[in-house]
This record gives sequence, structure tokens and C-alpha cells, in this order.
Amino acid sequence: MATKPQVASLLVYLIISAATATAYSRRPHPRRPCNELVFFFHDILFNGRNYNNATAAIVGSPQWGNKTAMATPFNFGDMVVFDDPITLDNNLHSPAVGRAQGMYFYDQKSIYGAWLGFSFLFNSTEYVGTLNFAGADPLMNKTRDISVIGGTGDFFMARGVATLMTDAFEGDVYFRLRVDIKLYECW
Amino acid sequence: MATKPQVASLLVYLIISAATATAYSRRPHPRRPCNELVFFFHDILFNGRNYNNATAAIVGSPQWGNKTAMATPFNFGDMVVFDDPITLDNNLHSPAVGRAQGMYFYDQKSIYGAWLGFSFLFNSTEYVGTLNFAGADPLMNKTRDISVIGGTGDFFMARGVATLMTDAFEGDVYFRLRVDIKLYECW
Amino acid sequence: MATKPQVASLLVYLIISAATATAYSRRPHPRRPCNELVFFFHDILFNGRNYNNATAAIVGSPQWGNKTAMATPFNFGDMVVFDDPITLDNNLHSPAVGRAQGMYFYDQKSIYGAWLGFSFLFNSTEYVGTLNFAGADPLMNKTRDISVIGGTGDFFMARGVATLMTDAFEGDVYFRLRVDIKLYECW
Repeated sequence: MATKPQVASLLVYLIISAATATAYSRRPHPRRPCNELVFFFHDILFNGRNYNNATAAIVGSPQWGNKTAMATPFNFGDMVVFDDPITLDNNLHSPAVGRAQGMYFYDQKSIYGAWLGFSFLFNSTEYVGTLNFAGADPLMNKTRDISVIGGTGDFFMARGVATLMTDAFEGDVYFRLRVDIKLYECW
Repeated sequence: MATKPQVASLLVYLIISAATATAYSRRPHPRRPCNELVFFFHDILFNGRNYNNATAAIVGSPQWGNKTAMATPFNFGDMVVFDDPITLDNNLHSPAVGRAQGMYFYDQKSIYGAWLGFSFLFNSTEYVGTLNFAGADPLMNKTRDISVIGGTGDFFMARGVATLMTDAFEGDVYFRLRVDIKLYECW
Repeated sequence: MATKPQVASLLVYLIISAATATAYSRRPHPRRPCNELVFFFHDILFNGRNYNNATAAIVGSPQWGNKTAMATPFNFGDMVVFDDPITLDNNLHSPAVGRAQGMYFYDQKSIYGAWLGFSFLFNSTEYVGTLNFAGADPLMNKTRDISVIGGTGDFFMARGVATLMTDAFEGDVYFRLRVDIKLYECW
């Protein structure tokens, strides 16, 4: 068995190691999420004839575009603001559990690709608070990862990764995204 | 009193617990801010006749909108870029301590709601650096929380929450926001 | 030499200190980057005559602007979406190692200043993943710091600071930015 001084030295070494690891390196981080959420959101684009149902509108477009139809080719240059219902399943008519609010714009000339900046707003018995997102959405990929860049309320200071999947679309007017949110920083 | 092996075991257990807690869970995080700041910023929207005073301009609008007046209803679809003075009190004519630069856009059809992406830029004796913000601004709420998503200079790597309050507004042309910034990550 | 109870007390104290430091303060953070990357990206703005070469287009503009030329003065109010090649050196014709996709807009009336929200997308033997950026770009400064607000794939959960430098520009149509990325959070 170790003598007392040896035990003490070992323990002091271990303590210092632990403290140093904390202060000077934040690895290894756990890659297990501290919270996982799955939602769907539904975007109905204003096309000049559907104002009442529309949840989104083109507000910027390139020189060859307009505000009631996507630009050709590949929607390049169209900028859209939206206030979309969030549901727990893929049914547009399910009760909304929150709103997805923000913008997306198409930024590629030779393939469908977009960039998103938006928030999820919750004010229900389940959640009160917001999650903020930013990132690229290369639409031809089956899954696209964007960043959860912050949160408030129940999601205070959250960070993580959200995986987008196009769950359905109908022409240029309707699309539905599935969003798998994994938070890795929870306060 | 504990025997030596018992003391050693207990201590090793405690050390491993501490180290594990560090590596595998970052809770509990302190919810005490590491920095608190309060500012006001002042937005004067270009309306076709006030170019010299204007600090903001509509650059995107929906099909039914234009660039010199907010769209009806609820400004939905209007996108604005701004370069607003930041002051320490609610007086537009107080010395500016920095600039708020970025954009907001109105994204709701049936109530006033916006989304913000912007930065605070400081270059004074007090602060040199930037804070970056993103989040939803449901304007009818008395207070709205957005995220501090990063910072540079004196605010290197900052994260936190900023609470917005509409301190005053005059029609569509002027509004003043009070921003209570609480940083929870300070480097 | 310390008696057993003294050793035990000291060690318990040290353990508690270390654990407390971990839980209640995350300082001091290391300011040594955990990853450093340098890239160039190249922006060719659509001017009405260069569609095939253009990597960017004006999609929003102020009342006095248009979609094929920068607004006067100082491009104020012009909003641009882009999909720019990323290279390892300052040669536009070097092999692209990724794409810079997102938007910038000019938000100052009396000097050149912009705000950026964009992503770097990598899908090469070197890197697979994305980095997301946001921040102000006061163009007259030799260097400008923006935030790395998140990342995915090889850059999972990254945070840091990116320093922008204008490496070259040709009128309003071409500019090249050098970006020095320093990550301080790597998972």
C-alpha cells in the first residue's frame, strides 16, 4: 500500500490535472445531446393569388425576378421572409406548437441552394422561449445541418445542430421541412 | 475516523466525480451574468423626404409594398438595413457611444413582428470591439429576448441574451429600443 | 509532516475548489486557438452583362438604387446574395476548396460598411462540413473581426473569430477577401 506522502502526492497531481484540464482545454466535449427535439414547419409562399393562406412572401429578387414567382433558374436571388406554423407531425392542419419566423434566400445559380436565418418561437404549456438558427441549406442533399446559435427562455443559451430534411413540396408554393434539433449546450 | 485506504478511496472517487462532471456535463452553469450593459439605439427610417436624418432604409418589400413607406398591414415583408447611433440614455441627441448596424424585417401578417440580425460596434475609450445579435422580435410583447451570438475585441467570444424594449416610437419613422445585454460567457 | 486529518481536509478543500471553479466560473479561457485556417473568397457581382461569370447578385436596394449597379453613395442599402468560390491562395482560378454562401448588405450612408451572414461549405478530402459566420464589416478598416457562430461536420459546434481583409477589388464588380479563421471552441 502507498505511504501517506505518496497518496497525498498522487491526489494533488490528480486534482491539478483535473483543474488544468478544465481551465486550459475544453475537450473532450460530450457528443451526446442534452436535449433532442423534432418538429415540422410549413411554408406557403405568396404567389399573387393566395394572400390569405400564405405564410411567406418574396421581398427581394434579382434583376430578372419578381415578387410573385420564383426566379429562373434555381430561384437564385429570391429572398423570402416567413412566419410558418410549427407542428409535431407532418400534417399542416395539426395544432401549431410554435412559429418559425425569419428568412431564407436562394444563393446558387446552378443548383437549388439556400441560406437560412430564423427563430423558433414557443409559448405553450410545453415550452416558452426561442431557439435561433443560421446556416446553409443545400437543398439537393437529403439532410442538411445548420447551427443552433442561441436560445432564450426554456432554451436559455442553447447551442447545437439542427438537421433539415425536405419532407414534402408542391411546386414553388408549399414545402414542409422536418427539423431534428440536437442541443449540446444546455444551461 | 476513516482509515487511510478509506480516505484515499473517497478522495479518488471525489476527484473522478469532479473530472467526470467537467468532461461529460457542463451543468450547472451559472446564471449570473459575467457582464451587464444597457444601451439605447435610435432608428430613423427613410420615408422619401428625410434622407439627411435617416439612419435606415427599406431595401426589400413585398409585391404590394414600396421603398418609402411601410407595407400594409403590419409592415409584413419590409426589410430594412440600418446604421443607428447607440446612446447611454434615451436622448437621441446624446453623444453616440457606438453604432448598431444590421437589418430587421417584418415577418408577420396579422401582428407586428420582426427578426433582427445586427452588430453593436464600439470604438471608444470605454470599449473597442463588437457584439453580434440575432433573434425574433415580437413587437407587441413588452420585452423580447434575442441572442448574443458572438463578440470580438473587448467582447471576444461573448455569448448571452439581450432583452429589447420599445422605449418610444413616432409613427413609422422613428423608434428607440432599449437593450439590456447580459453576457453569460466572457473570455 | 501533516497528520492524516489535515491531509484529508486540504485535499477535500482542493477538490471542492476545483469543482466550484468548474461549475461557477469558466474563466480563464485559453486564448490559444484550437484550430486556425486561412482562406480567400472571390465575389463577382452581377452588373447586367456578366451573368455567366457572376457569383453574386443584388436582390435588394434602396429607393434610389437598382439591381445592376451599386447605389450611390457608398452602396448604402444594397443587399447581395452570393455563392463564391473559396481558394487556398489569392488566385481566382485556383481550385475551389469550398463555397462561401450567404449575403452581405451595405448599411452605412457616409462610408463603406457592410454586414455579413454566410457559411463556408466544405466537401473535399480535406474537410466535410460547414462554418457559419455573422458580423459587421467596416470596410475601411484594414482588418475586421466577425464571429464564427457555429459549425457542423468536421467543424461540429465550432466557435471563434474570423478576421477579414480586403485582398483586392476591381471597381464594384470584383472583390477578394482573405479570411483568417481562429476557432477557440472545438469539439
